[in-house]
Amino acid sequence: MKTNRITKLRNWMTERKVDLSIITSKESVFYFTGFLNDPHERLNALVVTSNEVYFVCPSMEIEDVKNVGFTGPIIGYSDTEDSIELLVNALPSELTVPVQTVSLELSQLSAERYLRLQEVLSWTNVYSSDELINILRMKKDQEELSYLREAAALADYAIEVGANALAEGKTEMDILGLVEYELKKKGINKMSFSTMVLTGANAASPHGVPGTTEIKNGDLVLFDLGVVYKGYCSDITRTLPFGEINEKQREIYTVVLEALEKALAIAKPGVKAKDLDLVAREHIAKAGYGDYFPHRLGHGLGISVHEYPSLTSTNELVLEEGMVLTVEPGIYVPGVAGVRIEDDILITKGGIEILTKYPKKLV
Amino acid sequence: MKTNRITKLRNWMTERKVDLSIITSKESVFYFTGFLNDPHERLNALVVTSNEVYFVCPSMEIEDVKNVGFTGPIIGYSDTEDSIELLVNALPSELTVPVQTVSLELSQLSAERYLRLQEVLSWTNVYSSDELINILRMKKDQEELSYLREAAALADYAIEVGANALAEGKTEMDILGLVEYELKKKGINKMSFSTMVLTGANAASPHGVPGTTEIKNGDLVLFDLGVVYKGYCSDITRTLPFGEINEKQREIYTVVLEALEKALAIAKPGVKAKDLDLVAREHIAKAGYGDYFPHRLGHGLGISVHEYPSLTSTNELVLEEGMVLTVEPGIYVPGVAGVRIEDDILITKGGIEILTKYPKKLV
Repeated sequence: MKTNRITKLRNWMTERKVDLSIITSKESVFYFTGFLNDPHERLNALVVTSNEVYFVCPSMEIEDVKNVGFTGPIIGYSDTEDSIELLVNALPSELTVPVQTVSLELSQLSAERYLRLQEVLSWTNVYSSDELINILRMKKDQEELSYLREAAALADYAIEVGANALAEGKTEMDILGLVEYELKKKGINKMSFSTMVLTGANAASPHGVPGTTEIKNGDLVLFDLGVVYKGYCSDITRTLPFGEINEKQREIYTVVLEALEKALAIAKPGVKAKDLDLVAREHIAKAGYGDYFPHRLGHGLGISVHEYPSLTSTNELVLEEGMVLTVEPGIYVPGVAGVRIEDDILITKGGIEILTKYPKKLV
Repeated sequence: MKTNRITKLRNWMTERKVDLSIITSKESVFYFTGFLNDPHERLNALVVTSNEVYFVCPSMEIEDVKNVGFTGPIIGYSDTEDSIELLVNALPSELTVPVQTVSLELSQLSAERYLRLQEVLSWTNVYSSDELINILRMKKDQEELSYLREAAALADYAIEVGANALAEGKTEMDILGLVEYELKKKGINKMSFSTMVLTGANAASPHGVPGTTEIKNGDLVLFDLGVVYKGYCSDITRTLPFGEINEKQREIYTVVLEALEKALAIAKPGVKAKDLDLVAREHIAKAGYGDYFPHRLGHGLGISVHEYPSLTSTNELVLEEGMVLTVEPGIYVPGVAGVRIEDDILITKGGIEILTKYPKKLV
C-alpha cells in the first residue's frame, strides 16, 4: 500500500468535499497499492473514503494483494457474485446511500460500469479523478526511478542487439524477432508498445509497420522500442546507418541530433514543457525541415508509456525535479529518409539525468 | 464496408426504434467496416442511422478507410478539432438534437465519452448494442473462416517450433522467445494473448507465469498461445512430455484428452453450449479430478480471443453452423501435474471441423 499517495488523494478529496473515490484502472490500482494485475473484464477496485481504504478483487487474487503489503480489508468475489454489490455493502457506516459526492476515473471506466455505480450509489455529484492522478504520477519517487533506470538500460541493450544483427538481406521482422528473443532470455516478457524496426523508405513513412522488407546497403534503420520492468516503461529510438549512407541522410540525421541536444541542454526545473518542444522545433525549421517534424517533442513516461506531461509547443506546464520524459525529435522526408532519435530523461535538481545511454553519434 | 452486417444492425435498430447507433470499439469498427485500426485515446466512430452510414476518424486515417472499401462519407479531424462535435454536425437532416433513442457500445465506451455524447445528443433513451454485436459476431462467414484457419495453422506451427526446442536446461522464456521469433520471421507480429510456456510445477499452478524455470527430465511442458492473422485469433494449448513422465502424469493427461474427445464427439448444430462443458466435466469428475478443473470448457473465437459463446455448465445457447469455439479441458493438481489440451473448432452442418491439427496423442 502506497500510503503517501493515498494521503495525497485524500487531501484532494477533502478540498473538493468528495466522500468516496473508487480507483479502477490497472495503472492507478498499481500506483496506489503496488498490486500489478490486469483483471481484464473483471473488477479490481480500490475504495477510499476519509477514514477507510479497502480493496475489491476476484477471490483468487487476495493472496497476491496481501503480498504487496495491502493492509486494509480485502473483499474477494467469485464469478457468480456481484462485485459492485459487495463494494457498496462494504461502505463504512458513516457513508450511506445516496452518497453525496463520488470521484471516479471517468476516462478509464466503462460507461456500463459507470451506469451501474450511479444506480447503486445514487450520487448527487460525480467528479473525475483522472487529472489529479495524472498530475500525481508525474513526479517519480526513488523506487520508481530505480525501475525506470533499469527499464532504460534494458532498452539500451535491445538497441545493441539490433545494431549487431543488422545485415544485408535480413528483414525488419528478423531483426525485431531477435531483439525481443534476447530480451525474453533476460526474463523480459512485456514490451511497453509494439516494437518498431523500419528500414529505408518504411522509416520515412508515418504509416510504416515492420514487415518483410530487407535491409540493404545505404539504409537508415529506425528502432523504436521499450520494455516494461516491474511495471515501469522505457521508450528509446535510435536510427542506425547500415553501410554507406548519402550526404542528405547524414544531414537529416545531424539536424535531428542537434535538435535533441538543444532540448536536453535547456531541460531543468523551472523550464516549461513547451520550451523544450520549441527549441527543437525551431532548430529543425531553420534547417529547412519544419514541415517534416509532424509530432510533439515527447511525453511523460512511467507506469504508462504515454503519460503527463506532454511536450507540445503550447504546454505551459513547468518542469519539476522527479519528472521523467521522452525527448524525441524526428524528420521524415518521404522517399529520402526518416530519422528519429529519442532519449528518456529525468529532471534533476540541477538539470537532467539521461537514462538511455546508447550512443547517438553518427559513425 | 460490410453491408450485410450493417443491414443486420439496422434491422435491430428498427425493431427497437433506435434512431442512431454509434460504433466505437476497434473490434466492432473492424467487424462493420473492415478497417482494422487501434486509435488509442483518439476516436474512430461508425455512425449508423436508418438511411446513412458515415465514419469519423483522425484525418491521417482517411486514405486507409477508403482503401478497405468504405463508401460512405468519411469525416476526418485533426488533434485540435473536436471529434464529437464533428460527429454531431454530420447527423442527417431528419435527425435533430435531442435525438430520441441512441445505441452505444456501453461496455467498451469510456464514461467520459458517454457523458459527452449524452450532453450533445440529449437522448431520451439509450440502449446497449453490446449484446447484439456479440451475437452477430458468433457466426462466421467464409472470409472470416479462411483467416481463422490460417491463424490456427500458424498456432500449430508455433507448437511444433516449441516442441522441437525442448531441451534440458532451457528456460520457459528461452522457448517462448524462440517460438515468437520464428513466428515473427513469418511476418506475424501480434499474438492473440501473452504466450504461456510453463514447465513442471508452474504448469500445475493457476498463477503460473513464464520465467527462468528450467525444463528438466520428466516435466510436462504446457504451451498456450495464439496468433492474430488479418484481425482473427487462434488459441491452442498442448501439454508435451519431456523425457520420462510418470504414471500419474500419464493418467492425468489421458483423462484430459478423453474429456476433450468426448466434447468434440457431441459438438454439432442443435447441441447446447452447456452440453459440451458437462460431458467433459463429468468425465473428469468420474476419474476423480473434478476439483481440479476450475474453469469453463471454452469460449468463442474470432476478432477477439474471448467472445461469444461461453462454454459454461449453464449456458443454454444452441450451437449453430459457422460458430468457432475453443474446447480446452484441464486438470491442475498442485505439486503433481498441470495438463490442458485445447483445440479450435468450427461447427459445421454435420458436426465439426477441427482447425488446430497439432497431434494430441501422448507418445
